[in-house]
Amino acid sequence: MRNVNSRLSTQEYLRLIGVAELPPLTSPFDPGYDPVTVESHLDQSAHLMASLKISMACWQIANETATRRKITAARVHNVPAVTGGGPFEVAVAQGQLEVYLDLCADLGITRIECGEGFTELTLKPREVVKMAHERDLAVQYEMGKKHEGPFTEKSVEEAIARGHAWLDAGAVQLVVEARESARGVGAFDDQGSLNTAFVDRFAEEFGFDAVMFEAPNKPSQFAFLEHFGPRVHLCNVRLEELLRVEIFRRGLHSDAFAITKLQPVHPGSQTA
Amino acid sequence: MRNVNSRLSTQEYLRLIGVAELPPLTSPFDPGYDPVTVESHLDQSAHLMASLKISMACWQIANETATRRKITAARVHNVPAVTGGGPFEVAVAQGQLEVYLDLCADLGITRIECGEGFTELTLKPREVVKMAHERDLAVQYEMGKKHEGPFTEKSVEEAIARGHAWLDAGAVQLVVEARESARGVGAFDDQGSLNTAFVDRFAEEFGFDAVMFEAPNKPSQFAFLEHFGPRVHLCNVRLEELLRVEIFRRGLHSDAFAITKLQPVHPGSQTA
Amino acid sequence: MRNVNSRLSTQEYLRLIGVAELPPLTSPFDPGYDPVTVESHLDQSAHLMASLKISMACWQIANETATRRKITAARVHNVPAVTGGGPFEVAVAQGQLEVYLDLCADLGITRIECGEGFTELTLKPREVVKMAHERDLAVQYEMGKKHEGPFTEKSVEEAIARGHAWLDAGAVQLVVEARESARGVGAFDDQGSLNTAFVDRFAEEFGFDAVMFEAPNKPSQFAFLEHFGPRVHLCNVRLEELLRVEIFRRGLHSDAFAITKLQPVHPGSQTA
Repeated sequence: MRNVNSRLSTQEYLRLIGVAELPPLTSPFDPGYDPVTVESHLDQSAHLMASLKISMACWQIANETATRRKITAARVHNVPAVTGGGPFEVAVAQGQLEVYLDLCADLGITRIECGEGFTELTLKPREVVKMAHERDLAVQYEMGKKHEGPFTEKSVEEAIARGHAWLDAGAVQLVVEARESARGVGAFDDQGSLNTAFVDRFAEEFGFDAVMFEAPNKPSQFAFLEHFGPRVHLCNVRLEELLRVEIFRRGLHSDAFAITKLQPVHPGSQTA
Repeated sequence: MRNVNSRLSTQEYLRLIGVAELPPLTSPFDPGYDPVTVESHLDQSAHLMASLKISMACWQIANETATRRKITAARVHNVPAVTGGGPFEVAVAQGQLEVYLDLCADLGITRIECGEGFTELTLKPREVVKMAHERDLAVQYEMGKKHEGPFTEKSVEEAIARGHAWLDAGAVQLVVEARESARGVGAFDDQGSLNTAFVDRFAEEFGFDAVMFEAPNKPSQFAFLEHFGPRVHLCNVRLEELLRVEIFRRGLHSDAFAITKLQPVHPGSQTA
Repeated sequence: MRNVNSRLSTQEYLRLIGVAELPPLTSPFDPGYDPVTVESHLDQSAHLMASLKISMACWQIANETATRRKITAARVHNVPAVTGGGPFEVAVAQGQLEVYLDLCADLGITRIECGEGFTELTLKPREVVKMAHERDLAVQYEMGKKHEGPFTEKSVEEAIARGHAWLDAGAVQLVVEARESARGVGAFDDQGSLNTAFVDRFAEEFGFDAVMFEAPNKPSQFAFLEHFGPRVHLCNVRLEELLRVEIFRRGLHSDAFAITKLQPVHPGSQTA
């Protein structure tokens, strides 16, 4: 029995109620928040972030000082700062990939995302990864198309083939597209239902360490955690929703407490 | 007539246009914002907050320094900091209620919420309140079930009986459940329409001092204020929506100005 | 060819990928955020803001220090701070217009919005503008009714006549109403579709310098930019959505890159 008078940290309390310790498993994104808010979210939740996406092209048109503040804050908290796939595709299409990579490196970005969501890429994965590595930038690759509707069996297999090609070329992680809506795109049908057979394919093929799933809203976040349990790596979570995702992941949300895969172990059944 | 050259405060201006002074009548919640944002909302709106809910279990998994900053900021502004019903239910279910109460007290929480939204409570209200009071924690009780759909006449009467039991045991306030959706739960049907007969029962039975209503979104907030007028106590309002609720309450919103119960008194009909 | 080793600013990068430089063309609004967040958005995006609306009556009931902080931050960044039409209409209806204008001037407001969205105005535009100018306040006028559903051909012509009357009286800008919903109001039908014939009428009649369009959500923002191209002046954009609007405006959003009116010029086809 603990001494009632001693102070208990929130972390110790979580252990007492049977919540398993987990590594950071969510990669939230900054959809264009102000830098003070981003910094303060990092203060609050850096230990829950596998990486932080500085989103879309917002950072290119913001005051550069604000952009640098966000990236620096991520680095201070040892959270890899990642740029999105959109600016990569635009850079390639406009013939300025080298300059884009120079810019990312100079800003202090840790990792870039590559993709073919709304353009075609003629460069080989190996060439792109090489150019990134020359600038100390890691690479992740997003599988899926933004404007072609939900996956089909054929497009899932094509996406998987591309994922392998990028991992083989040196990419560190893969992303499964769901955009901002999780509806009519990727593994989500037009009603927003998750095609579990499709996401199981990605998980079996790459494992939870290599593949992460975009889960931009509450239904998609809960669907992935309910299906896969607490070890699934989620991304595209808005910063202000990160804590809600993480309490669901740990069975501490009222809708998660009864889900066998997620619920905390009952203390009586624990080995101290 | 006032001197045109003298400076007028916003508060004096409100009096001049016939807006009644009101005590704090909304209890907003922090759904997982960053601590700087929460602090700054308190600077802006503490005088409008009856209490501040540090929501769900988010505070248990956030960096503890961030959690303590939020609670301290509420105390500095004399706003009671309240923990939600979810963590209470989990603590009871995991057999760690005493430890939970110790933790809340140590963090500086003013009041805890108790409930049986997704679990059954075998402890008597009096026992729980006694344990809380031993740690200088006040108690509020949430009436309603999270997963059983809207109230029925039977479940309203059961909820009312429970409310009385908790007030009798020493609870200071009651909450009527509406979750985050105000749809298919509590007094809201599946289309989000407010069952005014049900909420009238709660208001008649407990009065506006003892009962508050969860109003998590614009339609539910406006429905309560339109039905009950400016004296109804609302809770579960997101921090960033607090000011919109309060201008509606005072008849200063374009949709409220024509509502007789809410509209400011016309200065001509006032006694100065 | 640029020197690969030299540092490139984000602004220089935008030029390289063919993004045209644009003056500030969006007038975001503060829907009741905390002052620190508002200040930090100004640090990040002041160069993209044509003005900043301190919204609805929120600033009248907030702690006055918080209100003054927001207005001061806008002034420091040379962004005109504008009050909304609602408080103007209430002031007139309550017979306190002079006091309202004194208050706005004393707080440091640059421009007030006038309108007849939910009340009738018996004062002539010239009288109102004169009273505002005596206090160094500029004037903008909002065309449209909040509670009468979408425009008809008749109400568009009435709105245009009013717009001309206000410009003739000395107003600097006009606003086309869309409320918070862009649905069943102004140029948006009950499904949220934009009536392009109606907005073309406003644009032809007043030009993009004099008229701006309320675009409170993603579908309305994208509809205006897709229809009019990058030069349209949008307002009622939530602060946190400003950067997304601006990357769409510049063709840098994945949904905008293929839109001929918006896409960046291909560097190869540029004259350096």
